[in-house]
Amino acid sequence: MQTKKVRVQGKVYLVGAGPGDPDLLTLKAARILGTADVVLHDALVSREVLVLVAKDAERIDVGKRCGRKLLTQEEINALLISYTRAHEVVVRLKGGDPLIFGRAGEEIEALRRAGVDFEIVPGITAAMGAAAAARISLTDRRVASQVLFTTAHRVGDGIEADWSRVTRTTTLVVYMPGADHTHVAQLLRDSGWPAEMPCAIVSAATSNHQKILRTNLAALPNEPALPAPALLIVGRVASQVFQEAGKDFWEEVAAREAQGESVPQQVF
Amino acid sequence: MQTKKVRVQGKVYLVGAGPGDPDLLTLKAARILGTADVVLHDALVSREVLVLVAKDAERIDVGKRCGRKLLTQEEINALLISYTRAHEVVVRLKGGDPLIFGRAGEEIEALRRAGVDFEIVPGITAAMGAAAAARISLTDRRVASQVLFTTAHRVGDGIEADWSRVTRTTTLVVYMPGADHTHVAQLLRDSGWPAEMPCAIVSAATSNHQKILRTNLAALPNEPALPAPALLIVGRVASQVFQEAGKDFWEEVAAREAQGESVPQQVF
Repeated sequence: MQTKKVRVQGKVYLVGAGPGDPDLLTLKAARILGTADVVLHDALVSREVLVLVAKDAERIDVGKRCGRKLLTQEEINALLISYTRAHEVVVRLKGGDPLIFGRAGEEIEALRRAGVDFEIVPGITAAMGAAAAARISLTDRRVASQVLFTTAHRVGDGIEADWSRVTRTTTLVVYMPGADHTHVAQLLRDSGWPAEMPCAIVSAATSNHQKILRTNLAALPNEPALPAPALLIVGRVASQVFQEAGKDFWEEVAAREAQGESVPQQVF
Repeated sequence: MQTKKVRVQGKVYLVGAGPGDPDLLTLKAARILGTADVVLHDALVSREVLVLVAKDAERIDVGKRCGRKLLTQEEINALLISYTRAHEVVVRLKGGDPLIFGRAGEEIEALRRAGVDFEIVPGITAAMGAAAAARISLTDRRVASQVLFTTAHRVGDGIEADWSRVTRTTTLVVYMPGADHTHVAQLLRDSGWPAEMPCAIVSAATSNHQKILRTNLAALPNEPALPAPALLIVGRVASQVFQEAGKDFWEEVAAREAQGESVPQQVF
């Protein structure tokens, strides 16, 4: 086995740091952090998780600060590759899961092109942390058939999420919904989602600062902004009232809406 | 603090067992398994994970065997509640994450109705295990805007996933795609997805028996059945050829298809 004294061909681990609570790291992720030579981490990764990094490991914050990028994606790619020339265990640590809104695609491509050995270690993505905190079964078979992880931000080269085609039995989990919920609420209302559709805003899920706000689409625009990182869950599954999980309730809502009747919202 | 000798009001932990590899349990899940008094687990939970259960804990397999249900959902709900009357740590252990196709909704409702204390401990859902194994960035911002976790099975009271409205920049992860991929492939082709759309079948992700088969929608119906549990990832992100991740390639495919031209499939 090679030692650090000689020139090595190291390996890159793209590791998911989970939603915040260090207890929600996987056993594998925790072990790799403990043996890391270098850790390049996002700003989103919590201090409690970083405590698990080997004491003598080099740590590099490659995240954004106050909207200013510390390093470009190309610079991060280049750093990962160059670190493997002198270090065995190079960790790229990302909040949540590396393969969900984590820009891992570009890093994977760069590592493959450079012929660098790498491995992906999954993490609990923010949606699952938030759902667990809010006790929402995202695919409750009584009212939902599927779940969509999406974002309110325009991504990459101009591709924008198209929610107008989302079915009503789809649970929507919106990553980075932003502070102003008016746009999101309007998009969904325009797509024919009922005003009474329940939703939950979960801020800093699984951390000590966790906040959960339960509301509905009609009231969403007026809800206060919760601190980032926040996440919005929209769908029948977000209801906290038992009978609302059933089909009958929703058929009744639809029927009353069709008649132009306003439906009381305090039931949510 | 109460001991096991007296009548206790225990707590139920709905715990995600992850995709298969016991190393992908969270630190929290592993600790709870080690202190469990009772564990009710699905058949899908691997033997390697069950090894982590406390030696003196009672273990109950509530899963399906050869299509035969061992216990109904109502019986499982009742068992969970009754076990909390004599045990402190009652664990409901589910493959993947409890809140994704895990029927946790009904258990949560039963526990709430009964006034039993409970907590949800997230796990790595099968989609993330499969994506990590196949090295697919599910939301690669260059070609995808969102990811849909769905299933090929009709669920619950007749709600069926409607893929005809899925946008082309959505990555599709199909849980339980079944052995015959013809139906899934046809549904997607009928919805206008191109024959060349890459996909990957991942069987027993993260376990020692893991198998990955890369194909495309045109060839999917003729692919051999891989052992369950399997999962199907469909979308541009599943491509393993660099230039295919770009927009140009897909615009060219669409243009050639529009002209009725057949597009070579061996590039995948």
